[in-house]
Amino acid sequence: MNWNYRTPGIPEEYFITGNVPITKTEVRVITLSKLKLSEDSIALDIGCGTGSVTVEMAQLCSKGLVYSLDKNEDAIELVNKNVEKFQLSNVEILQGEAPGALPSITFDRIFIGGGSKSLDEIVNYVHEHLKPGGIVVANTILLDSTYNMLKLLTDKGFKNIECVNVNISKASSVPGWMMKAQNPIYIISAVK
Amino acid sequence: MNWNYRTPGIPEEYFITGNVPITKTEVRVITLSKLKLSEDSIALDIGCGTGSVTVEMAQLCSKGLVYSLDKNEDAIELVNKNVEKFQLSNVEILQGEAPGALPSITFDRIFIGGGSKSLDEIVNYVHEHLKPGGIVVANTILLDSTYNMLKLLTDKGFKNIECVNVNISKASSVPGWMMKAQNPIYIISAVK
Amino acid sequence: MNWNYRTPGIPEEYFITGNVPITKTEVRVITLSKLKLSEDSIALDIGCGTGSVTVEMAQLCSKGLVYSLDKNEDAIELVNKNVEKFQLSNVEILQGEAPGALPSITFDRIFIGGGSKSLDEIVNYVHEHLKPGGIVVANTILLDSTYNMLKLLTDKGFKNIECVNVNISKASSVPGWMMKAQNPIYIISAVK
Amino acid sequence: MNWNYRTPGIPEEYFITGNVPITKTEVRVITLSKLKLSEDSIALDIGCGTGSVTVEMAQLCSKGLVYSLDKNEDAIELVNKNVEKFQLSNVEILQGEAPGALPSITFDRIFIGGGSKSLDEIVNYVHEHLKPGGIVVANTILLDSTYNMLKLLTDKGFKNIECVNVNISKASSVPGWMMKAQNPIYIISAVK
Repeated sequence: MNWNYRTPGIPEEYFITGNVPITKTEVRVITLSKLKLSEDSIALDIGCGTGSVTVEMAQLCSKGLVYSLDKNEDAIELVNKNVEKFQLSNVEILQGEAPGALPSITFDRIFIGGGSKSLDEIVNYVHEHLKPGGIVVANTILLDSTYNMLKLLTDKGFKNIECVNVNISKASSVPGWMMKAQNPIYIISAVK
Repeated sequence: MNWNYRTPGIPEEYFITGNVPITKTEVRVITLSKLKLSEDSIALDIGCGTGSVTVEMAQLCSKGLVYSLDKNEDAIELVNKNVEKFQLSNVEILQGEAPGALPSITFDRIFIGGGSKSLDEIVNYVHEHLKPGGIVVANTILLDSTYNMLKLLTDKGFKNIECVNVNISKASSVPGWMMKAQNPIYIISAVK
Repeated sequence: MNWNYRTPGIPEEYFITGNVPITKTEVRVITLSKLKLSEDSIALDIGCGTGSVTVEMAQLCSKGLVYSLDKNEDAIELVNKNVEKFQLSNVEILQGEAPGALPSITFDRIFIGGGSKSLDEIVNYVHEHLKPGGIVVANTILLDSTYNMLKLLTDKGFKNIECVNVNISKASSVPGWMMKAQNPIYIISAVK
Repeated sequence: MNWNYRTPGIPEEYFITGNVPITKTEVRVITLSKLKLSEDSIALDIGCGTGSVTVEMAQLCSKGLVYSLDKNEDAIELVNKNVEKFQLSNVEILQGEAPGALPSITFDRIFIGGGSKSLDEIVNYVHEHLKPGGIVVANTILLDSTYNMLKLLTDKGFKNIECVNVNISKASSVPGWMMKAQNPIYIISAVK
């Protein structure tokens, strides 16, 4: 499948998903906008899950490279399938724990897909492997992770730290227009 | 100014704004994702305000064309300034009332930036001037406009009608991370 | 069971519920506050469902009377059980369609628990059977019902019409404090 | 002025307010419901601001007593005026810093109206001065205070800890029904 549009925001149903949760389209496009991706960005997706953010990053960074890590075997299988489905050749998929299994190169952009017990080690890694002026974006759903991420980024001296809380409800062509809520998510971004 | 990123989502402060309200960045990127723009799309922005959506559409549709209409003189002045600031040459700016002052060509994509007393005439225009398979997206802030837009699109036989209500709050690098709310907005999309 | 507190807001799990949806506690207390109930209010609950609003109204209007109507047999059984559980003797339970099955007396307060195909007839009934200065409150989840209720109340000349959209997410003592969203609800209130 | 209704939720405009922010009515009624007040509750309001929660607590606990503390002189003046306006005789108003200036008696219910640099000392005070089975409720607007309050309550062994995030938007009788957002607030509650 080719996504022939210039705008990100591939609908959720276009991805192969199993029991692994997928980043909702609306949250994904805000996340990508905060990442300010260029055609040649070298990007990293920590905790890539189904790979929906990886796929969109790889399409946008068509002359760049995207590294994707997840510890979960099911997730790795899904990312592989989705990368294949969207015919992407600029994705490096890695299985393992963050930050131990992360590559020791530098990145233009880093996305953290969720919380972790090793959040401080991950932020240390990000600080070490993000180029000056590079951008890190994290999606958090737990109040703990949200607070800890903001605190760790502040303590490490990241700049322009911003936290956006997104509450979305949606109705589809069903008579009555009943708005169904998605769980709220925090989109945190910062510049090194 | 050049926006050198592949991702839409130009921060609000990059635009020249007067007293004309600007579409918030997060809302803008969801709106653009629903528009599914291509490089060569012929697009229309009805009620373009400061022109923030126009500017992003024109950058994404770099081989296409964007028509922008507003009845407000101040808005027209701002769109002109912003189109100039972002060095765009594929925007046609029109002053006048919708739908009377809208061009009689067909479009791939139409964006409606807000409510209007002539919503039914505008939807009639959209139905007549959107190519089959073309997409219309509307941002509404009034419950009346939201309901009327959904009803008009349904009555006209548009497909895949969807309504997303976006509630966003944001905190910036100020000690304490106080979340400040933006007014909720409805993003309606449909396919002809 | 006795609810010995002066504050409304009986937790959802205190009620006997089946497959009938229950008004969430937070929404219920805002709803009750808009109803401005007195000890001796004569109140009506149209579309009472499990009866959670009925039970709270009956406790607050201890010297008044609460009429509760639902067309659904399961709902009627649940209201009966909950009225019994909370040992209330000032509730009249009626099964039938609104407004046909509603009593022809006048009320101080009327609560409409949801949408209906006969919304205009119900608002007519409310207008006829609410005392001057009486208050009507409606909870709506559909955009259609929300808009129609606001329009009908306006057309009938109701005063102080207000519409509150409530988006709530909640986390309970589980490690991580994950906020889970409830579907948004509109709480409409007006004075005759 | 007498609030003759059994339901809490005194509209904001009924209170004398200066530059001191007032707890919004919808947030106040959820807060009061979590406090589960009885007629004879001995309650404490830490950081009482304009005194809107104090006034409602004092009316609900008509045979009890409410202590209200604020460090801010303007706030103290406003609480005094509002307590007088609502003709309440069961309120003790104290000026000073928490927890130093708080009384050394025990309480049935404690409400914390906002964040503070001494949050840990305040939670220590609450733990020492709340009766077993007593309830503490806090309203927080900062992510920091929200997280810290949850952590401190957990560490101190409080039970049934719950965190509700309330996002409210409201429209009043103006043509168009434009929903205006209130800033989100966290309502945290726990049992000792």
